[in-house]
Amino acid sequence: MENFIAYNPVTLHFGKNILSTLGTTLKEYGNRVLFVYGKGSVKKSGLYDRIIADLKSQGIEVCEYSGIKSNPVIEDVDAAAVVGRENNVDVILAVGGGSVIDSSKIISATIPVEHSGWNFFTGTKAFKAVPIVAVLTLAATGTEMNPFAVVSNHALGQKSAFGSPLTFPKHSFLDPALTLTVPRDYTAYGIADLIAHCFEAWFGIGDTTLADRFVISIVKEAMKYGPMLLVDLQNYEFREKIMFAATMALNGMTMYGRSTGDWGVHSAGHILSLLYDVPHGASLTIVYPAWMRHFKDRIADRIAQLGSELFDEPLTADQSIVRIETFFKSLGCPVRLADLNIAGDLRKPIFESMVHNKVNGGNVRMLEEDYSELIGLFL
Amino acid sequence: MENFIAYNPVTLHFGKNILSTLGTTLKEYGNRVLFVYGKGSVKKSGLYDRIIADLKSQGIEVCEYSGIKSNPVIEDVDAAAVVGRENNVDVILAVGGGSVIDSSKIISATIPVEHSGWNFFTGTKAFKAVPIVAVLTLAATGTEMNPFAVVSNHALGQKSAFGSPLTFPKHSFLDPALTLTVPRDYTAYGIADLIAHCFEAWFGIGDTTLADRFVISIVKEAMKYGPMLLVDLQNYEFREKIMFAATMALNGMTMYGRSTGDWGVHSAGHILSLLYDVPHGASLTIVYPAWMRHFKDRIADRIAQLGSELFDEPLTADQSIVRIETFFKSLGCPVRLADLNIAGDLRKPIFESMVHNKVNGGNVRMLEEDYSELIGLFL
Repeated sequence: MENFIAYNPVTLHFGKNILSTLGTTLKEYGNRVLFVYGKGSVKKSGLYDRIIADLKSQGIEVCEYSGIKSNPVIEDVDAAAVVGRENNVDVILAVGGGSVIDSSKIISATIPVEHSGWNFFTGTKAFKAVPIVAVLTLAATGTEMNPFAVVSNHALGQKSAFGSPLTFPKHSFLDPALTLTVPRDYTAYGIADLIAHCFEAWFGIGDTTLADRFVISIVKEAMKYGPMLLVDLQNYEFREKIMFAATMALNGMTMYGRSTGDWGVHSAGHILSLLYDVPHGASLTIVYPAWMRHFKDRIADRIAQLGSELFDEPLTADQSIVRIETFFKSLGCPVRLADLNIAGDLRKPIFESMVHNKVNGGNVRMLEEDYSELIGLFL
Repeated sequence: MENFIAYNPVTLHFGKNILSTLGTTLKEYGNRVLFVYGKGSVKKSGLYDRIIADLKSQGIEVCEYSGIKSNPVIEDVDAAAVVGRENNVDVILAVGGGSVIDSSKIISATIPVEHSGWNFFTGTKAFKAVPIVAVLTLAATGTEMNPFAVVSNHALGQKSAFGSPLTFPKHSFLDPALTLTVPRDYTAYGIADLIAHCFEAWFGIGDTTLADRFVISIVKEAMKYGPMLLVDLQNYEFREKIMFAATMALNGMTMYGRSTGDWGVHSAGHILSLLYDVPHGASLTIVYPAWMRHFKDRIADRIAQLGSELFDEPLTADQSIVRIETFFKSLGCPVRLADLNIAGDLRKPIFESMVHNKVNGGNVRMLEEDYSELIGLFL
């Protein structure tokens, strides 16, 4: 095992009608709230009105920033921070999926400073942040119980990650009923995303048998209930299983005893999202099989162990890759860019963006000489 | 699943030479430390001198309270609180196993008030507490990553539990090397204790398949590496596995999706510790098989599922109980009071103390009419 520090101060509120204490929780942080959300699905579902009514009954003043994109951009972060600063807000209420909550983390650190939120992605440290209370409406990224945020800067052609002990949400509210309206494709991408998070831990540095068991537990849960959910999208119980699994997949527990995860697949997947607006989960189901095939000789034992444990039978690395790829396909996820009808002259722009973003992994080192073959495997 | 709130703000520092940042961590809380420890094994091992030297180099003033018993008593808690109060300490440094850290939690809440620490066990709430930094020297109770404390009051003939969001340690330092000197019997009791904590979650209320997987993961880890450690007590790697597993067994993750654990076995086990000073882990290996046998008809499916998953083959409830009991015996743990040479007229005092302490479980309700048969099963 590698030495590790475990720290996760998020208060997670999970279950049916759990939002009943949202207003009183926000009130603990003050009377002025910046309400951040996406493109309006929270209005269609009625959630927006319910929350506003709750906040008004608590005497809370609300300003808002909406329109956060599903691959969030720094322009929205900076504009939202201006709204928060001008209204002198006490707390941010982030209602949505990974994009809204990730954006809110950077907004929270940008409100107290004068510079763009992008500075945090290029080395500036956060010394202060407005508290965040999150309401999750999409089970996928695990952002609700970690400090990490991923944001794109199209002007610079970059998609980067940032996290600080200050950017954990203070509270996250998870009612599986709020995910009942998520469409089939994004439900599948969420399932794939949580599985990929577990894989990134698995392929990291550190021989930690118990955290490996946690990885296998979470992935098996997702592999069992994910397909059941996809044929029964209105099933509360299956929504609950997947929402819980997605949170556990990236709250730290899979990383205990490791010095780093790998994250090379995420790093490459971000390029596809940056260039072609590929949904995050879909980018991972495209890159993971390709990445395992390309690096198979370096990590054959680890791939074989993963497949054997997930499918409860002895499998080689090759067999494991095929089984995992087949599972992603069975979810209806793409495993090639062509599956999303993204075609044409893609090699050059992807290669150049990978170079520009220094795509790499924390354990399995990815060099420029790896990029071309990898790209060939996911076209 | 049952609704749940997950909250655990402990910063856990795990690994080799992890104590190198102990002094600077304490310094964040102030300059006056109350150093709490047990009966002197920390002096024998040299740990005491190392820590004192570190603290002195940081310019930290140390007062101390030693002699905490392995089944800790309220008199020590109250006396230590006086030392802390008179020296106006900023932080408590708890160095030891469950008894020292549990005691320190109550000391931390007692220092700011005028009453005995026992009041917290009888309904008084804690509104303030001195921060605690813990150094763990025994892998067993999981106290290093939870807010709970169990203390005895012999004057009242009671052994009770208390916990509050204020009584989490701020930081816990876990270096497996510090457990290399734990003797075989207490090593085995620690392994049994961590397994029993998982069982208490398993037999609680709430159908939560993923937390069930966490339970099985932790117990299987302990069942694999526990016996290997017991024949190789100086093996760092096995110490590391067991220390990590013990912390995970009671840091909340096995309880996600449950409204309560059972804790009836702990409740009965505490009586044996109270009356006959039975080590905590040993009390659990005596009571668990008896409790499962007595309540078998009510929870047959759950016992059978537990055994089948732990031993990777389909087992009935009866077979599962025998296998678990046999495993406890293989660790060298007692499964009857007679195994500890505790004999004589035990039925009456145990029965009366169970009545007096209102021994019960959170899920499987235990009534006075259950006590006699149960006692018969663990004599």
